[in-house]
Amino acid sequence: MAVKALVLYDFTAEPGNNELSVREGETVTVVDQSVGGGWIAAQNAGGRTGLVPEGYLQIGGGGGGDSWSGGGAYQQSPAGGDDDDGEWDDDWDDQSVSSYHGNGHMEEEAGTSGRSTHGHTVKISLNKFPFSKGPSPEVFLLASPPATSRESLPVYMGEVGPVWLYPATPLDCVIADPKKESKLYGLKSFIEYQITPNTTNRTVNHRYKHFDWLYERLLEKFGSLLLIPSLPDKQVTGRFDEDFIRIRMERLQAWMTRMCRHPVVSQSEVFQLFLTYKDERDWKSGKRRAEKDETVGPMMFSLVQPEAAELDVAQVEQKCELYSRFTKTMDDGVRELLTVGQTHWKRCTGPLPKEYERIGRAFGNLSTVFNSSRYPGEETLTNALTAAGKTYEEIAQIVAKQPQKDLHFLLETNSEYKGLLGCFPEIIAVHKAAVDKVKEAERLVSTGRISSGDRKLMTQRVSNMSYSLQAEMNHFHSNRIYDYNRVLQFYLEQQVAFYQQIADKLREALSHFTTL
Amino acid sequence: MAVKALVLYDFTAEPGNNELSVREGETVTVVDQSVGGGWIAAQNAGGRTGLVPEGYLQIGGGGGGDSWSGGGAYQQSPAGGDDDDGEWDDDWDDQSVSSYHGNGHMEEEAGTSGRSTHGHTVKISLNKFPFSKGPSPEVFLLASPPATSRESLPVYMGEVGPVWLYPATPLDCVIADPKKESKLYGLKSFIEYQITPNTTNRTVNHRYKHFDWLYERLLEKFGSLLLIPSLPDKQVTGRFDEDFIRIRMERLQAWMTRMCRHPVVSQSEVFQLFLTYKDERDWKSGKRRAEKDETVGPMMFSLVQPEAAELDVAQVEQKCELYSRFTKTMDDGVRELLTVGQTHWKRCTGPLPKEYERIGRAFGNLSTVFNSSRYPGEETLTNALTAAGKTYEEIAQIVAKQPQKDLHFLLETNSEYKGLLGCFPEIIAVHKAAVDKVKEAERLVSTGRISSGDRKLMTQRVSNMSYSLQAEMNHFHSNRIYDYNRVLQFYLEQQVAFYQQIADKLREALSHFTTL
Repeated sequence: MAVKALVLYDFTAEPGNNELSVREGETVTVVDQSVGGGWIAAQNAGGRTGLVPEGYLQIGGGGGGDSWSGGGAYQQSPAGGDDDDGEWDDDWDDQSVSSYHGNGHMEEEAGTSGRSTHGHTVKISLNKFPFSKGPSPEVFLLASPPATSRESLPVYMGEVGPVWLYPATPLDCVIADPKKESKLYGLKSFIEYQITPNTTNRTVNHRYKHFDWLYERLLEKFGSLLLIPSLPDKQVTGRFDEDFIRIRMERLQAWMTRMCRHPVVSQSEVFQLFLTYKDERDWKSGKRRAEKDETVGPMMFSLVQPEAAELDVAQVEQKCELYSRFTKTMDDGVRELLTVGQTHWKRCTGPLPKEYERIGRAFGNLSTVFNSSRYPGEETLTNALTAAGKTYEEIAQIVAKQPQKDLHFLLETNSEYKGLLGCFPEIIAVHKAAVDKVKEAERLVSTGRISSGDRKLMTQRVSNMSYSLQAEMNHFHSNRIYDYNRVLQFYLEQQVAFYQQIADKLREALSHFTTL
Repeated sequence: MAVKALVLYDFTAEPGNNELSVREGETVTVVDQSVGGGWIAAQNAGGRTGLVPEGYLQIGGGGGGDSWSGGGAYQQSPAGGDDDDGEWDDDWDDQSVSSYHGNGHMEEEAGTSGRSTHGHTVKISLNKFPFSKGPSPEVFLLASPPATSRESLPVYMGEVGPVWLYPATPLDCVIADPKKESKLYGLKSFIEYQITPNTTNRTVNHRYKHFDWLYERLLEKFGSLLLIPSLPDKQVTGRFDEDFIRIRMERLQAWMTRMCRHPVVSQSEVFQLFLTYKDERDWKSGKRRAEKDETVGPMMFSLVQPEAAELDVAQVEQKCELYSRFTKTMDDGVRELLTVGQTHWKRCTGPLPKEYERIGRAFGNLSTVFNSSRYPGEETLTNALTAAGKTYEEIAQIVAKQPQKDLHFLLETNSEYKGLLGCFPEIIAVHKAAVDKVKEAERLVSTGRISSGDRKLMTQRVSNMSYSLQAEMNHFHSNRIYDYNRVLQFYLEQQVAFYQQIADKLREALSHFTTL
């Protein structure tokens, strides 16, 4: 059955660039998901085929219009035939959907359930700040840590300023061997990944839906103060196609590596549970415990314990402004690089190799023509021309495959950073709301809404929030320098090898010609 | 005054490729003639700007529609103001036009005057064979050499078969120092080129119109048996812009070099006159003599003196078929290479460098953003990123300039060959008409239209024609092997240097990154 996709946003094709114009709400048929560079080949109802940006399509089963409404709705009527297509259902079922929404303990913090859509459509949460629209900042500025909590978030003063407590041995894990499994007598199929952490060196199995459960827990718990980037998009990769299992696994690996690298996330109970559960029973009880955790969201700020002196509101505000500006401009820079990278990808895999192939064929054809001349002494030239032609056809292949070798990683890293940067507006909005409330505190005291003791606590809490934000920002900066240094170095190394290979090939082709 | 151009053929723009659709008969404004690769930037009446293939436009003065009809018509009313634009008139005047058409001595050989349009519009003569449509082949099959003629065209048997008599020292010449000169008190301006042949080492001056006069003489005299390629197009380059004087001179040089290399052309009286006239008087009397020359066109076959045995008609026909096939397929090959080369030129000078520039700027911007982080230890990465960004901006420049360095010569050589190959249909048509006539000879004898002596003479003449065609073909082949070997070797050398330069630049950029 042909895979259909719902168009999420209007997209106007750049003429002559093999793109397809689509309108929001239109349904298209997916022709090729392996184009790469953020593009998907699709065909519209009129039969026209072309490339559409991956993010503009929501790929679903070939079913009716109602299947678009989301994984949950789709799952309530799983049709046997659709299972084989491997859409959505492989990673999603009633059980896990209900587990997100069934536990009403977070409902006083409105917006949390809104947050759980984060994983479904990336665009929604970017410009909405559920937390900041939620409860009055007093709630978390004055909240005490739950009596039962043994957690704390110490912030130390490092060389670069406030930093989290980094473990002596950094956690890491390897995701491998995706296996197709099935249940319900083969009616439901899914992919199971094998995850091995460096701490236990013992492999645990997880389905995508477990990763998604983990993501939701981390987001709920840490989303107000730490960067919890979205999981790799479900829809694009929710199939059994080898390429897509590979790329999903690559992206899950990148996501897990990033979470492992985070000193707070990696040490959290829920993350440890995910990587080191002993058996099914252990996993299930751990899941229930995590889902009942009440120390979540902005409440987490009550656990922050900085070793440094309290900051005044002006200092807090200044840092906040600085980070806000930096992350916004970096977001622009990252998007720019993604845009030009995607354009370049398309050129390198489309028109450019086609042109080299045509040049190669033109040389080859000329060689064939010359060979037919019956003129003596033709051979050296025709052999050399044939070699030159073949070389350009080889160059076409090299050019077409290159983006997968270098640009791919540059784009993947930038996509990751786009995701990370997308977490900042919410964190900064929570921060700003708190700062505003503290600035208002004088008036709140005079109108008797809070005591002067509360006001002191609020100022201290905002200072703690700032230390946590600074520690998180410094973590972000050090990772950013590491990641960009690594990915750009890799990109340039591959580019050097690419151009060098072409130069060497052409040099070889040149050697076939008679020296004049 | 803006330069206008008449659209000669319909051209449909490839979408998204910066091309402009134009209709035959439309007038457009020339925006940029220095685009290269066979493209001209033009603007239509609606204000849209884009690229149009050079060959689709006839560039003329800014005057009215009547100026399109040709140089002659335009010249009859030279307006002072137009002279300064340097269109056409600089190389063209009444005198030279009348000298083409005024001498009626060739009128019995209809079509010769038609041939003289060859220089004006390349496309006309390609599929029209004025000679073959002209007089009955008996005329030249039975014609005797003029009594006054001291000319002969010996054909020797060389290693490769029939060959012309090659001079011991090949003729060559250098065209240099184009000088802007004027007459009529500055009202008429023109460019004068300095030509120095290797035989006399004495420089003579010629204007473009003199080259054109020489071309017309050579075409008239040798066009039935030798390849006399068209001069570089008047219209594109008939201006005082430095770039266009340079490219016109380069093409005139290529044309003269080719003519110098031809053993028959280079030894002809008219060619020698052009290169070695002593003074104005010598030149003028030589001109008059050349214009009165009656040993021209198919009449030239009567001068062919092969040293080998007479060929029978079947052998003649077979050679003719072979050459016809070869030149047709080579013409296809050359056109294909020109087409892909022109497309490639446009990509290399347009979208590709723009993309490298955008990649470079994206790296540079990211460096600027990172610099603003106030995070310590940022410098190594930002410096490396800046270097990488600058490198890609330099690569953009290198890519954009490369076609001028290598593709240019590949395209120029192929354009020359397209011109040469365009001469074959006519030569082959004359040949075929003669062969058909000889095959008919039996019947002509029986109906008493020719004597059996005439029939013998016709068979011998066709054999001589075949020797001349074979000698010319062998000359073509040996030049072709030399030229393609040279130009492809040059192209590949430049391409190697190009890719090597980029690899080296990227290697340098890579060295700025911290080794991991």
